[in-house]
Amino acid sequence: MAGQKTDIWQPAIERPDAESRVILICEHASNHIPDHWNGLGLTPDQRQAHIAWDPGALGLAKGLSQRMDATLIHAPVSRLVYDLNRAPDMVGAMPARSEIHDIPGNAHITPEERLARTQAIYLPWAYGLHGLIARRIALGRRPVIITIHSFTPVYHGKHRTVEFGIIHDADAHLSVAILDAAHRKTRLQAELNSPYSAADDVTHTLRVHATPYGLPNAMLEVRNDLIATPEAQAAMAETLAPVLNMGIEEIQKQAKAS
Amino acid sequence: MAGQKTDIWQPAIERPDAESRVILICEHASNHIPDHWNGLGLTPDQRQAHIAWDPGALGLAKGLSQRMDATLIHAPVSRLVYDLNRAPDMVGAMPARSEIHDIPGNAHITPEERLARTQAIYLPWAYGLHGLIARRIALGRRPVIITIHSFTPVYHGKHRTVEFGIIHDADAHLSVAILDAAHRKTRLQAELNSPYSAADDVTHTLRVHATPYGLPNAMLEVRNDLIATPEAQAAMAETLAPVLNMGIEEIQKQAKAS
Repeated sequence: MAGQKTDIWQPAIERPDAESRVILICEHASNHIPDHWNGLGLTPDQRQAHIAWDPGALGLAKGLSQRMDATLIHAPVSRLVYDLNRAPDMVGAMPARSEIHDIPGNAHITPEERLARTQAIYLPWAYGLHGLIARRIALGRRPVIITIHSFTPVYHGKHRTVEFGIIHDADAHLSVAILDAAHRKTRLQAELNSPYSAADDVTHTLRVHATPYGLPNAMLEVRNDLIATPEAQAAMAETLAPVLNMGIEEIQKQAKAS
Repeated sequence: MAGQKTDIWQPAIERPDAESRVILICEHASNHIPDHWNGLGLTPDQRQAHIAWDPGALGLAKGLSQRMDATLIHAPVSRLVYDLNRAPDMVGAMPARSEIHDIPGNAHITPEERLARTQAIYLPWAYGLHGLIARRIALGRRPVIITIHSFTPVYHGKHRTVEFGIIHDADAHLSVAILDAAHRKTRLQAELNSPYSAADDVTHTLRVHATPYGLPNAMLEVRNDLIATPEAQAAMAETLAPVLNMGIEEIQKQAKAS
């Protein structure tokens, strides 16, 4: 790759002028590995696996975007080329290993290659998202930030019983309200800060884009066996859209009462 | 101004490839009001006063940049057009009043005008600064973020005795180390979180650009009567460069010891 020019990979933005306060974010939407990176030395099976993306997350996010009339921003390339929910110097930004898989194309990343991927993928993403958020704030429409992820039912051989995880960063209000709404409105096994939490460094997007502006925010994790087909993704969106709307209404009530 | 196209105002960046870990930031460097805003209805005297900029801050910042071999980013327009240390919906971002002065051109700002200034000034600044920071992080050179301000000796008729204020956001380490160095190396009346503190919403830049990445950071405030001439600015830079370097060395020692 040395000496080759790296293209710029812009985030995909759907419904930029949508009415809802919510901005939906899907950092692990894509398993696309641009030709420049020669597949990172992975097999076709590995490129379809959860290590390359969050299977089902984009379909769910699109379904939510449609039902909530919410803007959606999603990643154009695989998390193995650049994981957009990580800072440029985090090990997980361009991981040499993911769960039980070595990533050959990430085994020896020079500072120059790390810089090239940051400039080609992370910065255009950050600028695009910051622009969406700042423009809404300028118009007096402070957005609610919700990131959409999926997780694998089996990780390092262990089965996960949680089905719907809601993870918060510094401000827990929205996550707690969504959890409560999920318990009322669904039969999903819903849990706070599961299967991960902010202590695992998984809330980078929220930290950079929501917390500094004091925007309500939450990270959602859905077990990927529940959103394996387009039909299942649509059904989950149908289930979760009213849950998210109820959570947002609840924090708006709290804000007015305080 | 309705219907007119607003130009884009890029931040000025000096020594982008400098060796020091420090990135110096001067959000109130300029009193320039682009023609588009017709002087905001201010008198020539008002446009020279501290309400329009931080007098002396840019000269001090340039002197520090030169002596420390540090990158410097500074504002291209007056804080009265857009105060780059404020979010787009803060009253102070485009203030209708500053200290005892009404700002006629900011008396009735429509959402569209607020959006136009955000896109013309705030976002290009934010992108430029984020780019500087992310590229350093990608190269394994996590920067230290220091913002340079000046304050007026008399505010609302009251005389301020503090000469050098060091203000912190969430992480106080660097500010405390700089305060200690100032007490050891200078005869300045140096104080922590004076004449303002983060509680006054003056640490927007640190919150957006330093805190999310866990970067050491501090906001410096120098009383502007001490940096009123180019000679005084150079002398203050000569005094403060070793103070800042000593503070940075101290937190590096602390990081190694922990």
